[in-house]
Amino acid sequence: MTRYLITGGAGYIGSSVADRLLQDANNEVIAFDNFSTGRREFIEDALKKPNYKLIEGDLLDTAAIDKAMEGIDFVFHFAANADIRRGCEHPRKDLEQNTIATFNVLDAMRRNKAREIVFSSTGPIYGEAQIIPTPEDAPLPIQTSLYGASKLACEGLIEAFCEGFGFTSYIFRFVSILGERYQHGHVYDFYKQLMETPERLYILGNGKQRKSYLYIQDCIDAIFTAVEHKENKVNIYNLGTPEYCEVTDSATWISEEMGLNPKFEFSGGDRGWVGDNPFIFLDTKKIQSLGWKPKLTIKEAVVQTVKYLKENEWLLEDRK
Amino acid sequence: MTRYLITGGAGYIGSSVADRLLQDANNEVIAFDNFSTGRREFIEDALKKPNYKLIEGDLLDTAAIDKAMEGIDFVFHFAANADIRRGCEHPRKDLEQNTIATFNVLDAMRRNKAREIVFSSTGPIYGEAQIIPTPEDAPLPIQTSLYGASKLACEGLIEAFCEGFGFTSYIFRFVSILGERYQHGHVYDFYKQLMETPERLYILGNGKQRKSYLYIQDCIDAIFTAVEHKENKVNIYNLGTPEYCEVTDSATWISEEMGLNPKFEFSGGDRGWVGDNPFIFLDTKKIQSLGWKPKLTIKEAVVQTVKYLKENEWLLEDRK
Repeated sequence: MTRYLITGGAGYIGSSVADRLLQDANNEVIAFDNFSTGRREFIEDALKKPNYKLIEGDLLDTAAIDKAMEGIDFVFHFAANADIRRGCEHPRKDLEQNTIATFNVLDAMRRNKAREIVFSSTGPIYGEAQIIPTPEDAPLPIQTSLYGASKLACEGLIEAFCEGFGFTSYIFRFVSILGERYQHGHVYDFYKQLMETPERLYILGNGKQRKSYLYIQDCIDAIFTAVEHKENKVNIYNLGTPEYCEVTDSATWISEEMGLNPKFEFSGGDRGWVGDNPFIFLDTKKIQSLGWKPKLTIKEAVVQTVKYLKENEWLLEDRK
Repeated sequence: MTRYLITGGAGYIGSSVADRLLQDANNEVIAFDNFSTGRREFIEDALKKPNYKLIEGDLLDTAAIDKAMEGIDFVFHFAANADIRRGCEHPRKDLEQNTIATFNVLDAMRRNKAREIVFSSTGPIYGEAQIIPTPEDAPLPIQTSLYGASKLACEGLIEAFCEGFGFTSYIFRFVSILGERYQHGHVYDFYKQLMETPERLYILGNGKQRKSYLYIQDCIDAIFTAVEHKENKVNIYNLGTPEYCEVTDSATWISEEMGLNPKFEFSGGDRGWVGDNPFIFLDTKKIQSLGWKPKLTIKEAVVQTVKYLKENEWLLEDRK
């Protein structure tokens, strides 16, 4: 019996990992979520399982996370503010919800003797990488977003706890993730726009930004592959597909899947917003060397995501 | 007239920079300090100057730093918890006094339209560097101390504010600094030990740890050289001497300068404490390319520090 705690347990990736863990009746899963972006709909099935428990709480409440950590063996820490684009509108948010929240998780682990942690880091920690595809040991980057800065700060905290307190960590630098339960990002924005104005699509930047994406189930396969291959105190992997697309490619696939042929309008410039990286493409040879390969291409993952949104249009409604 | 704010303004480096700035009567200097490690003795001369002002306050008090930032043009941010060795005894301290405090400085700058910042980062952000001497663009390191992790987090925050809010930053990754007003580190510890027990010196590790040091006035020269050569939004420089010594070398120089010949006793192992890096040696070609060179060797800086401690034994007394 292994007891897992998943922070952001009702979120996109957290709830998907929970479902995967619950396939094994020997696993006990505690989901911790403040429902700022988590969704009760994502955990409906999980809540029916006897080996699943939901704790509503916030990671800035150290007493709450301390209590949730009792008896935990292994932590999946996915709770985060993932809104890279609006970082400058509320500068303190990434600090609090990412850096400080991660510290609180680590310190609760220390006090409760939980010693393994999976962490969702992100490609933007590489800033505007000079080496593309970007390997895990790229030159020390200059941060270009509060989001990237906060996630790099989390990585450093996790590594220091590994050194100081004997933790083992698995740090994954994700590209954007697509697929079931997706509820945030360009596919969501484009889909919503096209539902409202099917004849035109407004695209931030010049549409030539090159990005890489990964399908959620491929992402979870990669995480479990890395955990099975535990090699070091600190295990860092880029996660992405070995390909990229332009924003305009993705806009075309989304439109096609919706049966539309909108006129694309561009805000112009080589990036969508301050801190947007016009070319994100991670070198994923390290995780592939463990035998993992993505099952879906980027195009297939985009199409899968559109299908999912079609079947779940409640996700497009403004949150109450 | 330029208005400077120096956080940690009554500290070792902060008070030394203040004295340098006050040599120009056109500079206005506001020192901000909570006197956790700052010393009133260091600012006695400064306080006599009409263009100097002291504000007692803590960087976790956002209202206090916000008020201190009014009308400021340029910030020297030196306030920090610099106790790398005891990080694991109080894990939250580096987060609060370094990462969160730095965020508060940056956010107060943003609100008050101060746009230039000098920041004291540190060699330990390179973790256990694989490339030695370590250049500024070393491969993304794994953090091995809460102190290093917190300083790297500060760097990332500063860089993100530069990108998002048009700041200019000068980030200096220091080796340990020696010289006048030194009050913390191995020379201090060894001097104090030898005052109490002149016949033996207890050394953490095997004494073969290789470290680099820089004299305080050379450090300040380098900072002002870099600021004069402003090149980018983010300007990062290693600061150190182009040489290193072993801990045992330094122990010998200290003993000689004190006229002692103690027996060295070693705690053993290749490092002094968890997270201690047995070999810190920074590549300083970048700052040297601007025409800067250190005036003192490591040995001269160690001897200078011992002379200073001899003349200022009040620094060895336990703080009230």
